[in-house]
Amino acid sequence: MSTPATPSSWVEGAAGSGFDVDHLPYGVFARSGERPRVAVRIGDQVLDLSVVAAADMVDTHELFDQPTLNPFMAAGPAVWDSTRAWVTGLLTDQTERDLVEPALAPLDSVTMLLPFTVGDYVDFYASEHHASNVGRMFRPDAEPLLPNWKHLPVGYHGRSGTVVVSGTDVVRPCGQRVSTGSTDGGAPQPTYGPSQRLDIEAELGFVVGVPSAMGERVATSDFARHTFGVVGLNDWSARDIQAWEYVPLGPFLGKSFATSISAWVTPLAALDAAWTELPGQDDPEVLDYLRVDGPAGLDIEVEVVLDGEVVARPPYRTMYWSPAQMLAHTTVNGASVRTGDLWGSGTVSGPERDQRGSLLELSWGGKEPFTVAGRERTFLEDGDEVTLRYTAPGTGGGRISLGEVTGRILPAR
Amino acid sequence: MSTPATPSSWVEGAAGSGFDVDHLPYGVFARSGERPRVAVRIGDQVLDLSVVAAADMVDTHELFDQPTLNPFMAAGPAVWDSTRAWVTGLLTDQTERDLVEPALAPLDSVTMLLPFTVGDYVDFYASEHHASNVGRMFRPDAEPLLPNWKHLPVGYHGRSGTVVVSGTDVVRPCGQRVSTGSTDGGAPQPTYGPSQRLDIEAELGFVVGVPSAMGERVATSDFARHTFGVVGLNDWSARDIQAWEYVPLGPFLGKSFATSISAWVTPLAALDAAWTELPGQDDPEVLDYLRVDGPAGLDIEVEVVLDGEVVARPPYRTMYWSPAQMLAHTTVNGASVRTGDLWGSGTVSGPERDQRGSLLELSWGGKEPFTVAGRERTFLEDGDEVTLRYTAPGTGGGRISLGEVTGRILPAR
Repeated sequence: MSTPATPSSWVEGAAGSGFDVDHLPYGVFARSGERPRVAVRIGDQVLDLSVVAAADMVDTHELFDQPTLNPFMAAGPAVWDSTRAWVTGLLTDQTERDLVEPALAPLDSVTMLLPFTVGDYVDFYASEHHASNVGRMFRPDAEPLLPNWKHLPVGYHGRSGTVVVSGTDVVRPCGQRVSTGSTDGGAPQPTYGPSQRLDIEAELGFVVGVPSAMGERVATSDFARHTFGVVGLNDWSARDIQAWEYVPLGPFLGKSFATSISAWVTPLAALDAAWTELPGQDDPEVLDYLRVDGPAGLDIEVEVVLDGEVVARPPYRTMYWSPAQMLAHTTVNGASVRTGDLWGSGTVSGPERDQRGSLLELSWGGKEPFTVAGRERTFLEDGDEVTLRYTAPGTGGGRISLGEVTGRILPAR
Repeated sequence: MSTPATPSSWVEGAAGSGFDVDHLPYGVFARSGERPRVAVRIGDQVLDLSVVAAADMVDTHELFDQPTLNPFMAAGPAVWDSTRAWVTGLLTDQTERDLVEPALAPLDSVTMLLPFTVGDYVDFYASEHHASNVGRMFRPDAEPLLPNWKHLPVGYHGRSGTVVVSGTDVVRPCGQRVSTGSTDGGAPQPTYGPSQRLDIEAELGFVVGVPSAMGERVATSDFARHTFGVVGLNDWSARDIQAWEYVPLGPFLGKSFATSISAWVTPLAALDAAWTELPGQDDPEVLDYLRVDGPAGLDIEVEVVLDGEVVARPPYRTMYWSPAQMLAHTTVNGASVRTGDLWGSGTVSGPERDQRGSLLELSWGGKEPFTVAGRERTFLEDGDEVTLRYTAPGTGGGRISLGEVTGRILPAR
């Protein structure tokens, strides 16, 4: 690829970091006594876009004096592109320092908020390795993948009201669980209490900018017309609650207590160098509405960090289904998407043991503990902190650091 | 019960109708060139609450000059109660005619809009007869009910962005279906096309007014502190799409193309005379967080009208799980509810054939056609119009008519 190298920003610490001008993720920040506003991250600074856009008399400045990214995301690709070009100019042109510097603040001096109001949240199941691992654990005598799995990206709706921003503590959920052996004449007897198999799912999230109308199908080729960007996503899961409740209508309380996303939304334009071929969809071939041309996968590296130690490195490029296929599938029945709709990829797991994106898989259902900081571990314990990190090739030749997602487990109440 | 008879309204046509002062449902209406506002229905008239509240100098008048019921619903039981008392006074006291009459308009002179912005939408599966019928059809060699069914109200998240108001046409959805016999060496081969098994589900919907916080559990006894009211709900379903997609994560595109709700929201206070005992939850007993005291079921009669003919009369009083249990279950893991959250009861089906709330059950999976207007019918045809009607005992001694839900099927695009 002969992408010209992007110049670096004059902002101290940006050059060579994961947050130079080839990235420029968007978020919403607050400072004590001020109303929330839209920012771009550069190095370890936030740039208050509302201030600099008003000072620079940018037409769209009102889009940034907002408590969510939704108005900006709804404005569409032309505004996204012009904003990115304008911000890149500000941050690479030394003569703009007088304009820009008053609008910069250290990241650790502000509070980052949930970046957008979530419309509908859909969670997919797009990793063949993850779905196969789960199948092998739960249905050991059957084919690991169900018959529909390679024909359509399996997905379901999750709870949008409990999507929280990175850094939010997660209280261990309570609910109904059935322990092995707790049967009464063969009938399972649930008990009520805190989840004993609390887990993570390392995923990538995709955010809708431009809505579609009811009855309209979004073609795979129109992915970038509707999709604003990408977030890190941890789909916290209570495996014991889920296992008991999920037949026949799918996961509900095993997932709905919390889903964490990164504070920063990486715009699609920052991923131009990350597109890669899907692993392959030849057997079976997909139906026409799911066909994609060219590289539809993303070469994003994920790291799962448990209590300070990397316990897995799932490679996103191994995902079977592409995000464009997930969006096309979501709308093929005429369902509309709205600004702020969020979909998760499903757990990212690669073929190797240390590439698995859930503790369920890393500990093989709890039966094969793994070691973290010298201790044997299976599922999450109270006080555990989990951080998901993501990097991708940037257009500047280095790597960008997508929004990380962190959360700590508090005891059940 | 010795509830004193409520007086009737002086508004012509209200007395003896399903819309006298013992009902007073809320909705949002629009007239050409005017912004949408909140109304109450009385007889066949809409009362513009924003106009009459401003004229009467009611403190909360701004809650009614809104395009959705959400602000009023969020205001909580004290405001709901005082509003109902005030409106009842206006509509029963002849001396208020001069104030009220300018704010009345015939229902057929206005357009009713979606009454509230939907937060999360959850669909339950609370009828034992419905779940048993579906079990018998899909798993003929097994117990009709799955082991979890009597321990928890099974539910899943649906798509809130495609909840539409009664009267909205529904376009037949397309998607992946597998016809019987379309296999290739044993493997099912899906084809793409319009659903051939399009169905209805006659349900009741419940709407959250007062939110709860994350980590907070809503007790069954707090149902009325959080729940604003009830709507009619048709959970349109594409059975062929659903049957292929739904393992293992539940229904997705088979449901997400459209869910219709009534334009009118009946406040809980109008259902005071409708509470009745649940059919029974003795075997097994439910866990403590699901226990209810006193009458927790609702004696609401449902009618399913297909092309002008009543094809079923499902009795809501036969539902196994109560709405208070559904809300308690939704939040038992600490998930919050928001103003505008909507949950459906699941298909209402009684024990008799003519009490089944879906065409799937009425035609026993399409194998036992039934007759409408002299024609044999199974699933929905293009041009079909379905109306769901609901009545309940009112506090005035007669019956109130809850918001009806209607929709017509347009051909696939």
